[in-house]
Amino acid sequence: MTAKAIFYHAGCPVCVAAEDNVAKAIDSSRYTVEVVHLGNDKSRIGEAEAAGVKSVPALVLDGAPFHINFGASLSDLK
Amino acid sequence: MTAKAIFYHAGCPVCVAAEDNVAKAIDSSRYTVEVVHLGNDKSRIGEAEAAGVKSVPALVLDGAPFHINFGASLSDLK
Repeated sequence: MTAKAIFYHAGCPVCVAAEDNVAKAIDSSRYTVEVVHLGNDKSRIGEAEAAGVKSVPALVLDGAPFHINFGASLSDLK
Repeated sequence: MTAKAIFYHAGCPVCVAAEDNVAKAIDSSRYTVEVVHLGNDKSRIGEAEAAGVKSVPALVLDGAPFHINFGASLSDLK
């Protein structure tokens, strides 16, 4: 049984660095990591907002949002 | 051979949440995670600053700083 981790990004350089380092450092034996590009998949912006995500890159772990550095505001992706 | 991850915090609620979730999600088979409380160990603030850390909680992975949400500025811990 693995917990769910969702990494939201928008392809920005800050996002790529966070994905290559933080998202890839997550223990895949304990977490299933889904990577969502909100610039390409705008239909999921609402779900990210509902989880408390304000900007990307962000990691949602067990439903709790963790913003990692700052790439872009969610409002700029709409 | 494991890479080095350093989690800097200051005991704040935001820091504790980040430690309990993000820091603990890191794959310990690939990373050695060190947790540093900069409020208690001010001698290491300079090292964190040198790595580019501006605020806590922050995770430094392979020397690159990733700020996770916002708890306190490093300048407030001095």
